[in-house]
Amino acid sequence: MKISVVGGGSWGVTLANILACNSHEVMIYERDMVKCQIINNQHANPNFLDYKIDEKILASTDMEKSIDFANVIVLAVPSGAIRSVVGQINKIAKEPKLFVNVAKGIEPETLYTISQVYYDSVDKKIDGGFVTLSGPSLAKEVMRKRITLLTAASKREEDALLVQQLFSNQEYIRVYTSTDLVGVEVGGSVKNAIALISGILDGLNLGENARAALICRGLEELAKINRAFGGQDKTLFGLSGIGDLIVTSVSEKSRNFKAGRQVATGLNINDIMADSKEVIEGPRTIISCHQIGLKYEIELPIIETAYQVLFEDLNPLEAINNLMKRTLKSE
Amino acid sequence: MKISVVGGGSWGVTLANILACNSHEVMIYERDMVKCQIINNQHANPNFLDYKIDEKILASTDMEKSIDFANVIVLAVPSGAIRSVVGQINKIAKEPKLFVNVAKGIEPETLYTISQVYYDSVDKKIDGGFVTLSGPSLAKEVMRKRITLLTAASKREEDALLVQQLFSNQEYIRVYTSTDLVGVEVGGSVKNAIALISGILDGLNLGENARAALICRGLEELAKINRAFGGQDKTLFGLSGIGDLIVTSVSEKSRNFKAGRQVATGLNINDIMADSKEVIEGPRTIISCHQIGLKYEIELPIIETAYQVLFEDLNPLEAINNLMKRTLKSE
Repeated sequence: MKISVVGGGSWGVTLANILACNSHEVMIYERDMVKCQIINNQHANPNFLDYKIDEKILASTDMEKSIDFANVIVLAVPSGAIRSVVGQINKIAKEPKLFVNVAKGIEPETLYTISQVYYDSVDKKIDGGFVTLSGPSLAKEVMRKRITLLTAASKREEDALLVQQLFSNQEYIRVYTSTDLVGVEVGGSVKNAIALISGILDGLNLGENARAALICRGLEELAKINRAFGGQDKTLFGLSGIGDLIVTSVSEKSRNFKAGRQVATGLNINDIMADSKEVIEGPRTIISCHQIGLKYEIELPIIETAYQVLFEDLNPLEAINNLMKRTLKSE
Repeated sequence: MKISVVGGGSWGVTLANILACNSHEVMIYERDMVKCQIINNQHANPNFLDYKIDEKILASTDMEKSIDFANVIVLAVPSGAIRSVVGQINKIAKEPKLFVNVAKGIEPETLYTISQVYYDSVDKKIDGGFVTLSGPSLAKEVMRKRITLLTAASKREEDALLVQQLFSNQEYIRVYTSTDLVGVEVGGSVKNAIALISGILDGLNLGENARAALICRGLEELAKINRAFGGQDKTLFGLSGIGDLIVTSVSEKSRNFKAGRQVATGLNINDIMADSKEVIEGPRTIISCHQIGLKYEIELPIIETAYQVLFEDLNPLEAINNLMKRTLKSE
């Protein structure tokens, strides 16, 4: 099958490589010409040059050409760019496309998940379905063909099943399906917030017990948000919930985790983001979660504390002490 | 309050130290005289001598004296010793005691959790209640007063609340309560099985994506077992479920994880257990889970595969390949 990947970031190129290995024809749209040349001429992932990719993968700076190329479009751009990218595709596409989103985030202004942003912005005549592909997947490990399990979630099961077939192989990628689209989206998004907080704890050298406790109590807050959005609890047990949360919250390879560590050293989050080559979704997600807490009147002590640390200059150690002094309660 | 801790292993002494720091009077029963002397004279945790403990903690090889000392008895012995220890206490105790269990396991012969073993073996006249205290808690971190969150679970909420008060402080220990005793027990037990399997994956160098996927899909199997036992799903979101699972499955400080790594190098599990100074609960739990799968007709592909690796000489890499080739499915 022919598939276009919009976005030549580390994960977009990694996904393109899985698809090419699975014998699909793949074109990457990337506006940066240097990245395109690396893909076309050096056959490498432009974000980590040591990693070779399939020679048949093409890259182009021409969006129209890239969209015309395929009926399946993988959206591999930051969550904040989805609305404008879908707007661009509206003007280009001549027929319905199946969209596969891999971005994770909640739009702070609307509190929409990515699928809600998509349905809010896509032209009906090009809407051929929407699937979110999520799960614990450090790009470098996938590039090295390490075993990775993912979830393809869609309101329409047949679309999820198609994406499952496209990406799965018996060697290192195994894709499960889900029809709880919003649950998969909320899990994948909020985990970036918790991963960032986990990085703060790690930077403060608080240890593994505290980290496990954070993930656990953070998951409780994630579950509250998920219920407010109409997602199912059981989805959070899955790959896009706990699975993704674990890999992001304990790995030094995670951008959000690393950003949290820098926060612990006293750096300002805006400076950390400005210095990062790739988008760090965690801070934007923490803003969204803060808004969600207010809107739905949900108590989110950990996320709210993180908001204060990031945006209201609360000292991280003082923040931890406040959390420890809360009234004892049941789980 | 006066509290006795039965068992001078690393976790028992660590708990005794929390209680002493919280201004309780604590006596440890330990049959090994050398360990008692270390506690009484060197005021150190005999299992890691670098760690000093409160000087007021007493240790004794006299079980009768230790049981008479207190009305709250912390059972800090391996899961396989609970039945015989309760049997001994039956003969000694003159009045009801509140039992706080910290062992984790399922008896292979009966498929009883520890509380079920307790209720099956305790004399009615000394049964003053049963609480299980569980959660992500590496002993060395607790000894260093690192923040640790635990769950106290009991059928009778008032008993859980008492244990919450005994162990909590505002400095580094925060205890939550639960009335889903069996859920807390199953979570705490089965995580040892998954941690061991996680160690095998780590020994095979399969990476962090695979580990997160294992924890996630392993949790699905844990949930099936928990439901068969009448435990609640939501408990597995908690400290004794996911929390404990995470800390044990990613930490080199976990005995079960370390044992799994040794399995990956080709060592036999019986030899690994024989060489270990402290009891490794994982293999016994895998045997129990295997029996549970047969009895309740539950499909447990990961645990069953681990059983074959440990006890039927299945090659670990071949085992992984088999799991990857299973039919694709929904989450």
